[in-house]
Amino acid sequence: MPDIRLDKTSISNSFSDLQLEICTALEMADGGSTFIADDWTREDGGGGRTSILNEGKIIEKGGVAFSKVFGPTTDRIKNQLNLSGESDFLATGVSIVIHPHSPMMPIMHMNIRYFDLSDGTCWFGGGIDLTPHFVDDADANYFHNTLRAVCDKHHPDFYRTFKTWADDYFYIPHRNETRGIGGIFFDYLKPGDYGLNKAELYAFVVDLGSTFAGLYSYFMQKNEALPYTEKDKAWQGLRRGRYVEFNLLYDRGTKFGLESGGRTESILMSLPAHANWTYNFNPEPKSKEAYTLSKLVKGIDWCDN
Amino acid sequence: MPDIRLDKTSISNSFSDLQLEICTALEMADGGSTFIADDWTREDGGGGRTSILNEGKIIEKGGVAFSKVFGPTTDRIKNQLNLSGESDFLATGVSIVIHPHSPMMPIMHMNIRYFDLSDGTCWFGGGIDLTPHFVDDADANYFHNTLRAVCDKHHPDFYRTFKTWADDYFYIPHRNETRGIGGIFFDYLKPGDYGLNKAELYAFVVDLGSTFAGLYSYFMQKNEALPYTEKDKAWQGLRRGRYVEFNLLYDRGTKFGLESGGRTESILMSLPAHANWTYNFNPEPKSKEAYTLSKLVKGIDWCDN
Repeated sequence: MPDIRLDKTSISNSFSDLQLEICTALEMADGGSTFIADDWTREDGGGGRTSILNEGKIIEKGGVAFSKVFGPTTDRIKNQLNLSGESDFLATGVSIVIHPHSPMMPIMHMNIRYFDLSDGTCWFGGGIDLTPHFVDDADANYFHNTLRAVCDKHHPDFYRTFKTWADDYFYIPHRNETRGIGGIFFDYLKPGDYGLNKAELYAFVVDLGSTFAGLYSYFMQKNEALPYTEKDKAWQGLRRGRYVEFNLLYDRGTKFGLESGGRTESILMSLPAHANWTYNFNPEPKSKEAYTLSKLVKGIDWCDN
Repeated sequence: MPDIRLDKTSISNSFSDLQLEICTALEMADGGSTFIADDWTREDGGGGRTSILNEGKIIEKGGVAFSKVFGPTTDRIKNQLNLSGESDFLATGVSIVIHPHSPMMPIMHMNIRYFDLSDGTCWFGGGIDLTPHFVDDADANYFHNTLRAVCDKHHPDFYRTFKTWADDYFYIPHRNETRGIGGIFFDYLKPGDYGLNKAELYAFVVDLGSTFAGLYSYFMQKNEALPYTEKDKAWQGLRRGRYVEFNLLYDRGTKFGLESGGRTESILMSLPAHANWTYNFNPEPKSKEAYTLSKLVKGIDWCDN
């Protein structure tokens, strides 16, 4: 854990540093393009930097966004967060979504965030989840083992609790499918929860954030050269369509952001460059597409025991 | 107006007939493919027929859906429609969305619907709107003049009232853009409103429904052969992305359908075969893309006077 004072400025500064580190690491692993940083300011206080990599060698569209917004807590924010009373807020976080060219590479998402109220309340939230276009058991296993190792360093209950939370959160009810093979998700993690103080919770969140680039670089290295067909690309388009459905219909961050007047382009950077919809597509029985669907369910234990 | 008894069965039968007529007319105008009908049933009562045309000569993906669902009014439906008391409901309607191959052809949508409660309450709703990828003043003018003529046959206030309603309804707040150049939209039109009885309201709704195929065939005939570039196709992809955003984030029919356990594939047939998202795309000043954006605002009077 870095030796910093744990005030809100320090937290947002370390999130901003993390954004830069992640961009640098992903650029190195991609080797074909660089992130373009786009700075923006929020009328009522704060702003952010949205960094986008387009048309890389491996990454088709990747976004790494940092934001730090603050000001008086508006009625909208109060309603959405179920808050009462007058206070100022500060919200800061890093969000990432990477969409690769190849259908053999997964989509990967991460978010870490910190929310602070002037009445002294504060909490952390976050999550990381993997959306393979084709589920590969070994990749899913590697992903979940890595997350479990990060969690276990901080609390023995984190992985199981937050894995179940992710199964429930990254779920598309109208399709009766999970978005991908899950990961971890948590919210409203407050000092004192799990017997951990603020510095300890912060250490967990930063540890999780620092895991993203290495994990995705591993998949880039492992799967980049795998061959694929036009049929695989078509399936990727449909899976991306599901990703769009989840983000626009159910993702709380997207909804909260758009409704609270957040910056549209930064919020919707999560959407893929291309997505497809085909009426009532049903994969052939025993195909790898059908296998993928059979694994997009809650409650699968992907870890080694 | 057809000489039929105006009970709910007659209304749903005439809607079903209308679906078939529209499919036949669009197939003739397209000349390259036919609609495939897909029948489905609803567990709690009723069902529908969703007809899809894929990869036509002009139409890339078109859906014409009829449904007639009925049964006890569930709590979900009561909440969404703000109803109290116990009663059975019947809802029937025809919905259409046509996505063409060419960016020079507009996307066009129509819906007409009838809702009936066993306590004797009933109402009609509907709408028709045009989403050109590139706004063409003459086409917009033709579209609105045609709608005004249909409206004026039934009530002198319909066009102005329902045109304003469409401007407000087909609006994407997070983009500060209308979905297209609007059209008309109305809901909860009950016997007695505007001094019209049930048969007169029904006549308006059927008249509107019967306008769709002719109007779209006109655009097919007029714009099909217009040349376009790769750049025009890319812009079409972004406009389709906006269509997806509207339908998943704001369209009440989509939300109501998915939340009330409607048939997902029939509801989401409205989504295009392909859609794109590019981070923070801004068209060049004075381009035809910029002209289009300048016309995606509320309150434009597109009619001849």
